[in-house]
Amino acid sequence: MILCDIGNTHLHFYENSKISTYTPQNLPPKLEGAVFFISVNTQHTQALLNICPQAQDIAPLIHLPTSYQGLGVDRKAACLGLGSKSGVVVDAGSAISLDIMENSQHLGGVLLPGLSAYQKAYKSIAPILDQPLDRDIDLEQLPQSTAQAVSFGTLQSVLLLLKKVIGDKQAYFTGGDGAFLARFFPKSVYDPLLVFTGMQRALKQ
Amino acid sequence: MILCDIGNTHLHFYENSKISTYTPQNLPPKLEGAVFFISVNTQHTQALLNICPQAQDIAPLIHLPTSYQGLGVDRKAACLGLGSKSGVVVDAGSAISLDIMENSQHLGGVLLPGLSAYQKAYKSIAPILDQPLDRDIDLEQLPQSTAQAVSFGTLQSVLLLLKKVIGDKQAYFTGGDGAFLARFFPKSVYDPLLVFTGMQRALKQ
Repeated sequence: MILCDIGNTHLHFYENSKISTYTPQNLPPKLEGAVFFISVNTQHTQALLNICPQAQDIAPLIHLPTSYQGLGVDRKAACLGLGSKSGVVVDAGSAISLDIMENSQHLGGVLLPGLSAYQKAYKSIAPILDQPLDRDIDLEQLPQSTAQAVSFGTLQSVLLLLKKVIGDKQAYFTGGDGAFLARFFPKSVYDPLLVFTGMQRALKQ
Repeated sequence: MILCDIGNTHLHFYENSKISTYTPQNLPPKLEGAVFFISVNTQHTQALLNICPQAQDIAPLIHLPTSYQGLGVDRKAACLGLGSKSGVVVDAGSAISLDIMENSQHLGGVLLPGLSAYQKAYKSIAPILDQPLDRDIDLEQLPQSTAQAVSFGTLQSVLLLLKKVIGDKQAYFTGGDGAFLARFFPKSVYDPLLVFTGMQRALKQ
């Protein structure tokens, strides 16, 4: 059995306890056997169906108690991945989503651009702001160059929002930048499988 | 005498105590008399010189004591606009710049995308994230929709960074979104003329 989480940049596959990540352009030519997917991007869904016509969309099986309008199926699956645990799910990919779970209820959520979207946003303003994110930037020192100012702005603003929303709750990080951001929260958990665990729970119910 | 501050989106003119704002595409056909400008965008500079070949770049007159590498001339001018006052200059335009001045010295600065750049960043991730910024979003309530989640993420992360950098210092806001952001800082000053005041100081020296 293969599980597939189709995002806005990548397709993530989970098989035999292993995650493989592809862009829609570099997918394998064929996928055999049972494939279950969720997707937030219809174009990328089509790319999967082209190589794997038998793949099944399990979105109808993903049920999360919430009053939030328009919660993405990947965010629902990640929240289901918590099981009965309460806390904040931070999925840091193309976007950074924060979702608050308490007693198996979804209480609300917040969205930020993903770290690479920040870089593109600066670049779109002026060529001189096209600077790589320095992930080791010292957040205790005032920046002394454009490169530092951009990295400090991105990281400090994202981390301050995360701290504000997380408060003293337990945080569960996932997604491509999840391991990096989790480092700033010593009591947090990094779980790259959160979405897939949620998909497995939905399939078993 | 006309002063002109050429940014990455707009050209701002100051004449007879009045500011007029243009895009490079809708400039008046001609400008007469003495025109002094600073610019962070060479293409837009050319647009000004096309309608006003006599305009003079006063960047060489803008001197600000700093160890910051690559500080934009508009940020220098805004800091000079403080005169001998200490505090944080927040220029909220295409980008949001924060610059810390103490005893007429520039101590460092931070950059964030401008509010409209945030909107474009979300839009570039997924069509569903293309949401207008709700400037009245309640920052005390957890968002319950994608539209709320995006506005909350933008505003809360920007404001938390501003609060962190400003601390108990005096803040001086300028730029297109300066009046709006200043509202969240009751003891702050909104001064749309900060850059022009700095240019005038440089011309008088």
